[in-house]
Amino acid sequence: DLQAQKAGQLFSGLLALNVVFLGSAFICSMIFNNVAVTLEDVWLLLVVLKVLSLLWLLYYVASTTRRAHAVLYRDPHAGPIWVRGSLVLFGSCTIFLNIFRVGYNVSHVHCKSQLELVFPPIEIVFISIQTWVLWKHCKDCVQVQTNLTRCGLMLTLATNLLLWVLAITNDSMHHEIEAELSALMEKFSGNETNTCLCLNVTVCEVFRRGYLLLYPFSTEYCLVCCAVLFVMWKNVGRCLAPHAGPHPSTPPFRLHGAIFGPLLGMLALVAGVCIFVLFQIQASGPAIAHQYFTLYYAFCAAILPAMTLACLVGTAIHGLEERELDTLKNPTRSLDVVLLMGAALGQVGIAYFSIVAIVATHPQELLNRLILAYSLLLILQHITQNLFIIEGLHRRPVWEAALQGKPEAEPPRRGSLLELGQSLQWASLAYIHSYSHLNWKRRALKEISLFLILCNITLWMMPAFGMHPEFENGLEKDFYGYGTWFTIVNFGLPLGVFYRMHSVGGLVELYLGA
Amino acid sequence: DLQAQKAGQLFSGLLALNVVFLGSAFICSMIFNNVAVTLEDVWLLLVVLKVLSLLWLLYYVASTTRRAHAVLYRDPHAGPIWVRGSLVLFGSCTIFLNIFRVGYNVSHVHCKSQLELVFPPIEIVFISIQTWVLWKHCKDCVQVQTNLTRCGLMLTLATNLLLWVLAITNDSMHHEIEAELSALMEKFSGNETNTCLCLNVTVCEVFRRGYLLLYPFSTEYCLVCCAVLFVMWKNVGRCLAPHAGPHPSTPPFRLHGAIFGPLLGMLALVAGVCIFVLFQIQASGPAIAHQYFTLYYAFCAAILPAMTLACLVGTAIHGLEERELDTLKNPTRSLDVVLLMGAALGQVGIAYFSIVAIVATHPQELLNRLILAYSLLLILQHITQNLFIIEGLHRRPVWEAALQGKPEAEPPRRGSLLELGQSLQWASLAYIHSYSHLNWKRRALKEISLFLILCNITLWMMPAFGMHPEFENGLEKDFYGYGTWFTIVNFGLPLGVFYRMHSVGGLVELYLGA
Repeated sequence: DLQAQKAGQLFSGLLALNVVFLGSAFICSMIFNNVAVTLEDVWLLLVVLKVLSLLWLLYYVASTTRRAHAVLYRDPHAGPIWVRGSLVLFGSCTIFLNIFRVGYNVSHVHCKSQLELVFPPIEIVFISIQTWVLWKHCKDCVQVQTNLTRCGLMLTLATNLLLWVLAITNDSMHHEIEAELSALMEKFSGNETNTCLCLNVTVCEVFRRGYLLLYPFSTEYCLVCCAVLFVMWKNVGRCLAPHAGPHPSTPPFRLHGAIFGPLLGMLALVAGVCIFVLFQIQASGPAIAHQYFTLYYAFCAAILPAMTLACLVGTAIHGLEERELDTLKNPTRSLDVVLLMGAALGQVGIAYFSIVAIVATHPQELLNRLILAYSLLLILQHITQNLFIIEGLHRRPVWEAALQGKPEAEPPRRGSLLELGQSLQWASLAYIHSYSHLNWKRRALKEISLFLILCNITLWMMPAFGMHPEFENGLEKDFYGYGTWFTIVNFGLPLGVFYRMHSVGGLVELYLGA
Repeated sequence: DLQAQKAGQLFSGLLALNVVFLGSAFICSMIFNNVAVTLEDVWLLLVVLKVLSLLWLLYYVASTTRRAHAVLYRDPHAGPIWVRGSLVLFGSCTIFLNIFRVGYNVSHVHCKSQLELVFPPIEIVFISIQTWVLWKHCKDCVQVQTNLTRCGLMLTLATNLLLWVLAITNDSMHHEIEAELSALMEKFSGNETNTCLCLNVTVCEVFRRGYLLLYPFSTEYCLVCCAVLFVMWKNVGRCLAPHAGPHPSTPPFRLHGAIFGPLLGMLALVAGVCIFVLFQIQASGPAIAHQYFTLYYAFCAAILPAMTLACLVGTAIHGLEERELDTLKNPTRSLDVVLLMGAALGQVGIAYFSIVAIVATHPQELLNRLILAYSLLLILQHITQNLFIIEGLHRRPVWEAALQGKPEAEPPRRGSLLELGQSLQWASLAYIHSYSHLNWKRRALKEISLFLILCNITLWMMPAFGMHPEFENGLEKDFYGYGTWFTIVNFGLPLGVFYRMHSVGGLVELYLGA
């Protein structure tokens, strides 16, 4: 049985690998030989994959709802609410993005091919159905047709991965928009050119802005889908121990008298929101003034060392603590750790590229020095935060220790009153131990976690809602060239946003466990 | 203790990640902005890394030989003879490559910078010492200074990885050689240009040929070093069960009456050698005639379906067999499986890129159709071979089952003669069972394994000794452009060579186990 499972995983993995390779070869051909393989060829391939994935998703829903024994277990760790929430959020953003694309295409209908008008509606259908299926079924541990299910999941995963690869490498729409803007400028200055121009300028402006603003969400959406589908794939054919069914509910979120952490964190959050608003107001104009970049990078250069320090102190406290280590194998935690490390690559990669660009051009300006400091601090912060969170995830939560320290809960016997009394006494002791009597270490951990949660939310909010100073400051864009830097940023930023989200999830767990 | 190990692995992994990122950013900057970051900057960075790695390697040797308790255990699975052999083989090839580079540079001394003359000797020193240390210490399970050792190993691994990345992306030397050749042509035709020309044409020709021939070996060397260093890193701080010390010796390699497999395999090998020799004779001329490409691809298109068929039959027999599954966790086997899957990516990637290039250009020639068929068959062959080998590695070898089926070997007692007799009788029965009485399934498996071993050796030999029709046939080079195709082929081919070597290793294990 284990062997059959391994073989199924191997086969479906190979299938996905081949699909991804074929698609990547298409996309690379498009990039390096635009004449022989056009963007439309790539889209056609993706439409075929999307239709196949859709058919499979519908078949999956039909077959699992028809048979009662198809899904006997549901993994309580899979698909937590924040993952499903971001799935819906990013999914609806991507749908809006495609609506804007339809609008843009329709208003340029006189110079677009028929095929180009068809693709966005297909994408909308695909995303709607996929989001709905994943929302409903992300916790499933399927027991029937395991091999077919694995292959179908991997096909869908490969499709999403290819959509992601295309999204981070294909800057044609951005180019088109820029070309149109400059063509408009020329038109006003009298030089009529035969570029494809918009029929209604105001409406086009809305579509254009919407498209540029929502673009990062679509890359984000593909990543989240891949993560969810991977967890589902891992869970195919898995049998959970029956008693693990009702997951021990985590204690409710309460402050426990933590003051400094939330206060400092709120300060950072408020400052971040102010800077974000100022920056976005500027960004809606033709160009962003120099001092706003300075403001942004100075803010980051102030907040990042504080976060690094907090992580270091937290790691030190973890080292001092006498709490038990949880050395059991835990697939969800392993995946968490891998995702945390993998997602960190995005921002760290961007930071290293920035550093090399700045060091190689030897700039003397304050702004460039700030960017250099920011990049270095960012790398340091990612490393220390990863250490802190991973170290923390391997400690046993206090509330779990309290619950499990209790002498083994035997099947209810008609026991003596004495036993009942002892049990009650024990429960109240555990309660006191875990809630009232916080020693300084646990209190410090709670303060640090809260501070880090708020800081991470601040740093998540800025890129997630369309603030991309890395792209707009122009330094690295000039150094690497538009296309290369577009790819690097579009590879790194969505991963960075994902990293912040995931960190918040991990930190909340740490907070509750401390 | 487990926690300390995890933390150490995490920290050293992060260190390596950062080094690799920094180096990659350098290399990317060099590719996309050749003015600000030159090749010499990248070399300087690599020299720094090499010197650091060298210092650490020497310190490691000194510290482990001085302390007796530093290496208590040696992992019997790590560093098998074929890995260490290829380390030395590829290492010496890389040293020769650098000697040719020195020769080439010296004969162009009037137009090379001082710095360029210094790099190859440093590389020679680095490779010699690294090969020597890895040869001696690749089985170590170090017990002292585990964190420092992990960091040092990861630093060395990162250095080798960066050398590999540089080798597959930096085609400057190849460009230089081509430029010189065309300049020489022009000189003969009377147009004197001011390109840097060789002082002695015959000597330069030797250096040039040697450089081009040995180039793939250097990329191969980096890959093998990375694999060995990774295994050493995994083994740091590992304690082996003491009784596992003397590894149960595998039975000697004997034919057991297999006839058809080795015969067919030898046929393929001889044909392959003939084609290889013909091709290389052609390649030493100015251009390779069309029919030799046809010959090569036709040969491959004949041998690959046979291999695929053999793998399918083998997998089916595995399915029929009643042998026990080995479901125990086995880190060496897991690494084997991962390496097999990872190395397959190389050739599969090249094949997909070829397919897209051919399909997009719609060629009508026989050769292009052959290349298309070859690429498709190659992908199929990789998939089926991976399934066959991985399936086989999870079966328990017959000889091991025979040895372990024996009642637990108790410490020698002055036992009765009867017991001794029983024991002898048992041993001879086991011998008969495992060697003489081969049922048809085991016999078929042995035939298939032998056939596949010889075929894989054939397909290994051709690219390993400098036959690169993928690069010379010109089809994909025209389609993707020189630089891109150079990177794809130099990424894929060494992985492909590694894949064939690794397959042979796995198949020999299957043969002995069947």
